Amino acid sequence: MTSDTTSGTAAEAGFPARDRWSAANCSVARALEVVGTRSTFLLLREAFFGTRRFDDFRRRVGVTEAVAAARLRELVEEGLLARRPYQEPGQRTRQEYRLTAKGRQLFPVLIAIMDWGDRYLADPDGPPVRIWHAQCGSEVHAEVRCAQGHPVPLRECRVDLREP
Amino acid sequence: MTSDTTSGTAAEAGFPARDRWSAANCSVARALEVVGTRSTFLLLREAFFGTRRFDDFRRRVGVTEAVAAARLRELVEEGLLARRPYQEPGQRTRQEYRLTAKGRQLFPVLIAIMDWGDRYLADPDGPPVRIWHAQCGSEVHAEVRCAQGHPVPLRECRVDLREP
Repeated sequence: MTSDTTSGTAAEAGFPARDRWSAANCSVARALEVVGTRSTFLLLREAFFGTRRFDDFRRRVGVTEAVAAARLRELVEEGLLARRPYQEPGQRTRQEYRLTAKGRQLFPVLIAIMDWGDRYLADPDGPPVRIWHAQCGSEVHAEVRCAQGHPVPLRECRVDLREP
Repeated sequence: MTSDTTSGTAAEAGFPARDRWSAANCSVARALEVVGTRSTFLLLREAFFGTRRFDDFRRRVGVTEAVAAARLRELVEEGLLARRPYQEPGQRTRQEYRLTAKGRQLFPVLIAIMDWGDRYLADPDGPPVRIWHAQCGSEVHAEVRCAQGHPVPLRECRVDLREP
């Protein structure tokens, strides 16, 4: 791997101290423990699209009642969804599911995954769903940027252990 | 759900035509078929960090040889990694694994997942790994932006079927 004095400079981000890091505390691994199951992430997709009711989640994700119930319960326990009671006239009280702030913060993950699928896996007639910015009408995408606002391609990234 | 004439305006993106869409062609679902397994995504994490050799992948992700071999083979078959021969002096030729363009395009997904894990799941002393922009030294993050370059919060997004 090409490397300069302290950091990788390859197409990959490069991580010279990789072998001093065990990944036991990896934020990616921890996040995947919570949202790394396909049915879980598809339930979140629906929540972002405004689905709130159990039967709609189950039907739109195409899972059994048992799977939907288990995954939604996990998402509530992890604090990504919150249950709220609602009642329709003449019906008993039911629970609906709403994204919490912690759940909503997964929005860049959803858009980044959708971007990639749109680009590489869509049917020849194109992706089925369009997401756009209400204020200007142009389509939204996920981008890697630095805190200064520069768009950052992979080759301009450096990675290292955060020293205490 | 609050909605204007054609699109949702809630905290969720809203998707008024949701029930006209079957999700059989969903780009998120298709992407998760490829990268929605935890060990697969952790192998990609390593590839982004510059890991190239089988034994390093296996050891750094903490999976068995059989799992590493199966997942790496899938990533090659899906075109996210490419195998390249290499040879060290006195050793037989081996294969290393490099991200393809299709694999590198998952970079915003990796950063978005890491951002979320850093924010909600890190130990009290903070996330272990830091990724920064070589040109300016500031940390990188994944953001949702529109094609005009505006940062787009979830509440300013609209979603609908892409009509042919």
